[in-house]
Amino acid sequence: MTGGPLRLYELPLSGNCWKIRLCLAERGLPYERVTIRDPERTFADAAFRRLSPLGRVPVLVCPDGTALWESGAILTWLAENTPLLPRDATRRAQVMAWLFWEQADLSPALALPRFFRRNGTEKANAERMRALQEKGRACLEFLDTYLSRQDYLCGAAYTLADLACHVYVMLSPEGGQDLAPFPAVRAWLERIAARQAWEPLLPAG
Amino acid sequence: MTGGPLRLYELPLSGNCWKIRLCLAERGLPYERVTIRDPERTFADAAFRRLSPLGRVPVLVCPDGTALWESGAILTWLAENTPLLPRDATRRAQVMAWLFWEQADLSPALALPRFFRRNGTEKANAERMRALQEKGRACLEFLDTYLSRQDYLCGAAYTLADLACHVYVMLSPEGGQDLAPFPAVRAWLERIAARQAWEPLLPAG
Repeated sequence: MTGGPLRLYELPLSGNCWKIRLCLAERGLPYERVTIRDPERTFADAAFRRLSPLGRVPVLVCPDGTALWESGAILTWLAENTPLLPRDATRRAQVMAWLFWEQADLSPALALPRFFRRNGTEKANAERMRALQEKGRACLEFLDTYLSRQDYLCGAAYTLADLACHVYVMLSPEGGQDLAPFPAVRAWLERIAARQAWEPLLPAG
Repeated sequence: MTGGPLRLYELPLSGNCWKIRLCLAERGLPYERVTIRDPERTFADAAFRRLSPLGRVPVLVCPDGTALWESGAILTWLAENTPLLPRDATRRAQVMAWLFWEQADLSPALALPRFFRRNGTEKANAERMRALQEKGRACLEFLDTYLSRQDYLCGAAYTLADLACHVYVMLSPEGGQDLAPFPAVRAWLERIAARQAWEPLLPAG
């Protein structure tokens, strides 16, 4: 991971891209940020598809030209050999469990309602919204129970599990979730946002 | 990973549990198979919830009592230090990308229609079914393009990416997917099923 800057292709409002920026900040790694302004055109473009076969972001391009896709894979690549991703096999599997759960369960339940609201298709997806909101509340309840017993998802220390899971939780009020009933989740979000490397999704102002 | 048998809690028809059995077979590891016969009761049971906080399978219990959950996390734990999960950081990230994609995109699109059909709720979920079938076809098209250029998802060698991704593809006709238009996918499934360690979801007969 030496020899030139990393290049991150991203969208400003994407939670999955935010995770990569937060992980780069935790690592203190410099990178070139390529913000895509016309996603529809770019995602269909053949040159972009050579970097991102699924035509989406985030994509992280290494100095040697290798392109990494899928936020979870990029995060584990960035976190390797750091305390964010423990070397011990069992502790590592526990971090990985949260990463997979986040992508398969938590993120669809929280990110899609936010997406429907932001792009004005909330009414067209009313039934789907209700089902997702309910699933989202169940996920938040699960997190709240867990976090009422320990400061971070894998125990006393912040890991990649927290980095990956807190993003769509923090954004979930934009999709209509109320975090008031989840005090342990709110305290966890505050602990994470107080980290030196943490930065907001968008610059202030 | 020594000192006693591993214990796998599973359901006979679950694709995610099948993946773990296939990975255990690839590793040649002995294990105790605990088949859950009354999932509704077991998944709500407090003792089971101590093993599986989300109340689902697969769960793999280690000889020291540590319980691992989320199929992707269990697979990476089992595959560590084997050719299934390359040590090289870039190649590892490529395997991981397929694992995350499988859980977030491929598996919901292929496994849910199969689930609706098997439990007789296909009609009640008609609209959802149609959307999922379409998404499933797009995933299969994506796989077919990839596999028309190389034998396995990460190149010339079978890895955890193939192990994880082939399961719900192989089961997808049970959810109404037609694999006829995807010759490279079908050839890939045949290559995988010819592996010495491969075993069918259910015993023959």
